[in-house]
Amino acid sequence: MVGDASLLIHGVGGLADAGPGELSFFGHPKYLAQVASTRATAVLVPDAGNVPLREGLAFIRVATPHLAFARIAQLFHPGPKHPPGISAQAFVDASASVDATATVMPFASVGPGARVGARVVLYPGVFLGEGAEVSDDSVLHPSVTVREHCQVGKRCILHASAVIGADGFGFAFDPETPAHVKIPQTGIVRIEDDVEIGAGTCVDRATSGETVIGRGTKIDNLVQVAHNVRVGALSILCAQAGVSGSAELGTGVVLAGQVGVVGHIRIGDGAKVSAQSGVAHDVEDGDIVSGSPAVSHRSWIKNHSALQKLPALLKAVRDLERRLATLELDEETTLP
Amino acid sequence: MVGDASLLIHGVGGLADAGPGELSFFGHPKYLAQVASTRATAVLVPDAGNVPLREGLAFIRVATPHLAFARIAQLFHPGPKHPPGISAQAFVDASASVDATATVMPFASVGPGARVGARVVLYPGVFLGEGAEVSDDSVLHPSVTVREHCQVGKRCILHASAVIGADGFGFAFDPETPAHVKIPQTGIVRIEDDVEIGAGTCVDRATSGETVIGRGTKIDNLVQVAHNVRVGALSILCAQAGVSGSAELGTGVVLAGQVGVVGHIRIGDGAKVSAQSGVAHDVEDGDIVSGSPAVSHRSWIKNHSALQKLPALLKAVRDLERRLATLELDEETTLP
Amino acid sequence: MVGDASLLIHGVGGLADAGPGELSFFGHPKYLAQVASTRATAVLVPDAGNVPLREGLAFIRVATPHLAFARIAQLFHPGPKHPPGISAQAFVDASASVDATATVMPFASVGPGARVGARVVLYPGVFLGEGAEVSDDSVLHPSVTVREHCQVGKRCILHASAVIGADGFGFAFDPETPAHVKIPQTGIVRIEDDVEIGAGTCVDRATSGETVIGRGTKIDNLVQVAHNVRVGALSILCAQAGVSGSAELGTGVVLAGQVGVVGHIRIGDGAKVSAQSGVAHDVEDGDIVSGSPAVSHRSWIKNHSALQKLPALLKAVRDLERRLATLELDEETTLP
Repeated sequence: MVGDASLLIHGVGGLADAGPGELSFFGHPKYLAQVASTRATAVLVPDAGNVPLREGLAFIRVATPHLAFARIAQLFHPGPKHPPGISAQAFVDASASVDATATVMPFASVGPGARVGARVVLYPGVFLGEGAEVSDDSVLHPSVTVREHCQVGKRCILHASAVIGADGFGFAFDPETPAHVKIPQTGIVRIEDDVEIGAGTCVDRATSGETVIGRGTKIDNLVQVAHNVRVGALSILCAQAGVSGSAELGTGVVLAGQVGVVGHIRIGDGAKVSAQSGVAHDVEDGDIVSGSPAVSHRSWIKNHSALQKLPALLKAVRDLERRLATLELDEETTLP
Repeated sequence: MVGDASLLIHGVGGLADAGPGELSFFGHPKYLAQVASTRATAVLVPDAGNVPLREGLAFIRVATPHLAFARIAQLFHPGPKHPPGISAQAFVDASASVDATATVMPFASVGPGARVGARVVLYPGVFLGEGAEVSDDSVLHPSVTVREHCQVGKRCILHASAVIGADGFGFAFDPETPAHVKIPQTGIVRIEDDVEIGAGTCVDRATSGETVIGRGTKIDNLVQVAHNVRVGALSILCAQAGVSGSAELGTGVVLAGQVGVVGHIRIGDGAKVSAQSGVAHDVEDGDIVSGSPAVSHRSWIKNHSALQKLPALLKAVRDLERRLATLELDEETTLP
Repeated sequence: MVGDASLLIHGVGGLADAGPGELSFFGHPKYLAQVASTRATAVLVPDAGNVPLREGLAFIRVATPHLAFARIAQLFHPGPKHPPGISAQAFVDASASVDATATVMPFASVGPGARVGARVVLYPGVFLGEGAEVSDDSVLHPSVTVREHCQVGKRCILHASAVIGADGFGFAFDPETPAHVKIPQTGIVRIEDDVEIGAGTCVDRATSGETVIGRGTKIDNLVQVAHNVRVGALSILCAQAGVSGSAELGTGVVLAGQVGVVGHIRIGDGAKVSAQSGVAHDVEDGDIVSGSPAVSHRSWIKNHSALQKLPALLKAVRDLERRLATLELDEETTLP
């Protein structure tokens, strides 16, 4: 702690937004100027490095300011408390089990045999199919669908209109009818603890067995996760990414926005895929890949930089051809 | 049939998942090892080709194991049966017509003049606008929207949060106000029989006339189909593909994942578009195109493979320039 | 006006669809043949240029036929009128304020302290969170979610299943637990007047402060707008585009379909981004950029056209190498 330890903090905010009485954080050198000009009362700063001391501004040194800020912000914003109970305007099947501490809002629908854990919140329009399970402390925002027999772990957050357990996209073509004959999708989706699923995101049920989203993984909005995909723990899938059937993502994988992953491949632990890339082959643990189709990020940079030189290269080669032709002509003329 | 014809089958599953008493299928040589190790009791195999005979494992020879499996799996998984009737917690306008065999669940909403056919299932949160029609045996999963006057054929499946008949994206710019002036979208969407529409997928109504999804076409999750698009029969649109206004897709077209198609073009019968491609021009019947902008798959492979050689090519040309300069200098020095 | 001014018009339609008694418009030279063959009774045409005069077909000369058509079509299609009032099957919190002229349909849900303006229409399944505000004359289609404290301006249209104010995607990694620790998203979304938001589109709430969609901006279906993004007035975001956190779009920006924009950059007023492009750097006012990563459209065309010549270039260079080697050998042999 550097500065006046008696200052009172009643809220948190970004360096640019925070006002008097608020705590902010300094996480990246490019925001140093904002530390100098912030109206915040206290700023979390890294253990090392200088900070511009100033009257009425206190600094708190921590190992990782961004992380400390997240934890403190959670204290200031514990989230809304909802009175427990089942709305008279909700539907809960007689065979369903809803914990007495759970909140079931109007127009939420809990199917036969479904189970709703302690302190779970089901917002309006949430649908839990037959035998679906939502474990303790999870929050399902409006119009989320969790279809039959799918499982949602503890402390999960499912944002509005997310769809868990729609049928996988599987058909066999019958050339005689002709028709695409539906392959029944009889598996489930299992979402482990501490997972967050973005608005409008779809995680399809397995053909048989499970589609799995591993513990602590965070998925952004409008992401597609196809049938039988297995996403490991602590992965990050950014908005509009899509993962095809039976692909496997390891632990701590990062898919940037609008990435596509073909089916039946593996993306290794800690691997990162750049935005808009299309991954068509296995990716080793820890690799970074880019492009469509994706290659190692290093190769991609080389190829991409070469591509910028391509118009000049075309000219250079035409020039070489001209000069070489001249030499060849000279040689013909000169040689005996 | 090869093996013990008296074995009893009570379910189906993939080669890796299936257990005793279950039937599986062998569709691709790369899974031959799984045939050897499967715990399934019977496996559908192709008419030709050897299979590893084994005690307690029966084989059934068929022309197309994958297709036979789909049909048999449907027998084992006929889908849930829903008691017919309209929930007291649903809303059905007095002027709507709902077949007595249809199921209208809580919080489903059927607008004025809408028609719901025999054995149709409307899950919670489904919305049918004024004059909308859903024909016999179709299933609309939770929170599906079918807006006014749109038509859904027989035996269709619309997955959760699909939106049929939202306004097409059409505006005329008025530089004086200035404003984007909305062009009323007064047409409809017509979905023919046996169509499946994925979760979160949007099919916009036509500006005037119809947006059409042809018989037996299957559309995956989070796909965008813009106003006045016409998709032919038996096509396959994979997840997150997008088709712009007034584009026409023929019969049996395949769009892989995240494909984009510009407006007012035609993709011919049986044409295939590779994942993440962007189609900017007409595609002939049966063609395969790739890349963004898409070219013939053959050209794309050539270009892509050349691109990998580009950094080496840059070096080679610099080398040529150096060597040529030496020769030119020699010539200058040598010639009289 | 060219032709019979006494003809009666009772509707509008495209040149190909319109029938007798309907008005159409001629906006692009490529549809000249359709003017000749249209069954419409009157056609809006540009002030300049010839039109094929014909019995029973009247022409109306205007500066911008497309714009005039939009305005006239709005007169013929004023949109459905909904009887005001709150359905007995809706939920409106006692502390919410709903204007007497607003329509709240069955299964719509208006949270504590939320405000609903004059003539607003909330379709079934709409959710307004605590303190959310929807201003006069806005229409929220089925299953739209507007989360707590978010604001929707006047005359806005939010299409089905749009999600306004879901949590931004923000986490700090704690390597010790290990866990991605959620950063509370305490800001809001503010949608200004005359905005249209497509079906399934997601606009995330700010971490702190506001995510803003500017006046008159139109957003298509399945678009992702991340936390703290600021979109200026009169912009156009086409389907499946995605804008990452804290990016800023100016006035009159156009993002074509499936475009991606990285975070913390600015796209200047009037700039245009071609379909499927990925924008990784600031774009100047009025620029047109293409490709992934995006470069100026001019450079992109040059690079792309060069890329098509790359296989031929590889051959040319191999040929040069061969010819040069021959010359070098000759020189070695020839020189003393």
